[in-house]
Amino acid sequence: MIIDKLIEKIKVTGNPTVVGLDPNQSFIPQFIKEETFAKYGKTLKGMGKAILIFNKMIIDEIYDLVPAVKPQIAMYERYGISGLKAYVKTIEYAKKRGLIIIGDIKRSDIASTGQAYSDGHIGRADVSGINYEVFKEDFITLNPYLGSDSITPFINDCKTYEKGLFVLAKTSNPNSGEIQDLMVDGVPLYEKVGGLISKWGEELIGTNGFSEVGAVVGATHPEQAKRLREIMPHTFFLVPGYGAQGGKAEDLAVCFNKDGFGAIVNSSRGIIAAYTKEPYKNSFSEEQFAKASRQAVIDMKNDLRRCI
Amino acid sequence: MIIDKLIEKIKVTGNPTVVGLDPNQSFIPQFIKEETFAKYGKTLKGMGKAILIFNKMIIDEIYDLVPAVKPQIAMYERYGISGLKAYVKTIEYAKKRGLIIIGDIKRSDIASTGQAYSDGHIGRADVSGINYEVFKEDFITLNPYLGSDSITPFINDCKTYEKGLFVLAKTSNPNSGEIQDLMVDGVPLYEKVGGLISKWGEELIGTNGFSEVGAVVGATHPEQAKRLREIMPHTFFLVPGYGAQGGKAEDLAVCFNKDGFGAIVNSSRGIIAAYTKEPYKNSFSEEQFAKASRQAVIDMKNDLRRCI
Repeated sequence: MIIDKLIEKIKVTGNPTVVGLDPNQSFIPQFIKEETFAKYGKTLKGMGKAILIFNKMIIDEIYDLVPAVKPQIAMYERYGISGLKAYVKTIEYAKKRGLIIIGDIKRSDIASTGQAYSDGHIGRADVSGINYEVFKEDFITLNPYLGSDSITPFINDCKTYEKGLFVLAKTSNPNSGEIQDLMVDGVPLYEKVGGLISKWGEELIGTNGFSEVGAVVGATHPEQAKRLREIMPHTFFLVPGYGAQGGKAEDLAVCFNKDGFGAIVNSSRGIIAAYTKEPYKNSFSEEQFAKASRQAVIDMKNDLRRCI
Repeated sequence: MIIDKLIEKIKVTGNPTVVGLDPNQSFIPQFIKEETFAKYGKTLKGMGKAILIFNKMIIDEIYDLVPAVKPQIAMYERYGISGLKAYVKTIEYAKKRGLIIIGDIKRSDIASTGQAYSDGHIGRADVSGINYEVFKEDFITLNPYLGSDSITPFINDCKTYEKGLFVLAKTSNPNSGEIQDLMVDGVPLYEKVGGLISKWGEELIGTNGFSEVGAVVGATHPEQAKRLREIMPHTFFLVPGYGAQGGKAEDLAVCFNKDGFGAIVNSSRGIIAAYTKEPYKNSFSEEQFAKASRQAVIDMKNDLRRCI
């Protein structure tokens, strides 16, 4: 099962970190953009090609240190077809390097439409009897607002194709509480959603005791994360918000069990744009951006292990 | 403002219908698939090309009868890059025919990531100082679960580029109540979300009294839709669920004001696959599928006008 493979890779690397591949153009070094713009112009295609080179160079430096990468599809979809080609090729390249792929797509729709997303991302797309694996993620993120029948098609494909999900429970953004913290029968909505996520995952629990249906739980809300960890013992957490968004290692320790498992922490900008930030910008040139990312992964691992 | 353009087109056509372009492969006539599979094989590309031909033939028969079309991006994303190329080209073709485009994308993400989606769909994607309009929808649908800061980037782009939104309030699927109907302070969650949607749209009200920030309100829950219509007087409704999902014209009349405005009703399968269904399959051959769609639009218009 994919959740067991993820946990196994966390054990091997000793590192519950996922690197968010969110290639904002301001993070991409000038020498890469100059190369692709010279070839394709300052076009969507030129940007898509730059993103792919950037991602590949980072993947080459981090693949032995982390279990997984999390490309954020919005950052590719922004550039249309050219951007999405870079998304697909990034996934293929990272898989070749042995990385597990968490596609941060936050999709959700009603039954037959949900099935279409599932076919494209974790299942198979049928073309007149021939099946194609399209985007090829191992895990994807989903939004729960539409309810169970919007999640069922994905769960079925998880069973068939050994894939996994992370469903939004409590997100890391400042206004996440506006809807997610509303009180329902004396408990906040995100706990109700947490209960649903647990239930959706009941039939998909792997040998390590965690389900292939995980939850997104932001690092920026430690008290709430602690409570969710208690009421969702079989749910693996994907934890965004570390670093740039303000989440600290001390805060997110509550997402882990006493044995140090149960969650994987995302960092995007903090790693892929490390060369632009303190302390790395003093030691690494723009040309060495991927080496800076490697050092940032090592430092993050040490920071996490201090607290977990 | 785009909401005024939509209302104007509803007046001109006398028809508050949006045709859902959700091209399931089973709806696409054999002769189209044979043509594209002969050329490109039974491949994702062959399917993408078939979808585009199918959509264009339908658009040619309906563009004078309806104000808008609503391509459901999941049905294209299923086939990866090839499918998404068909999505882009469908939008471009429908725009040339004068139709307003409601991209049913149900995206949402935290601030900078939400901005990336907004750039790609309703704003502009910057490539080193050059701005590109990428997917080119006029309206898009959004999921509200992440709260205000996930919606703000889209609202800003609505102001700048004269675009509009439909945010999910109460969806049409059977399990929509699981989260959306949970009681918060004595009112169901979808009403709370309705209140947020109203607030988000306050600064974007057009000359017809409706905001560019609309709401998705399913036709399958008439009592709930009635209540939302009362508490959201300036919010235009996108109403899915008519026809195949069980929503009847009598039920969805509550989504409209007394003057007959305030909502647009979606039908997808009921129109684009009309030739496969009673009563059309008796009068129209598979080759005449687009003519059947035309007749289905006329019949839906008459059905709606009976009740609105």
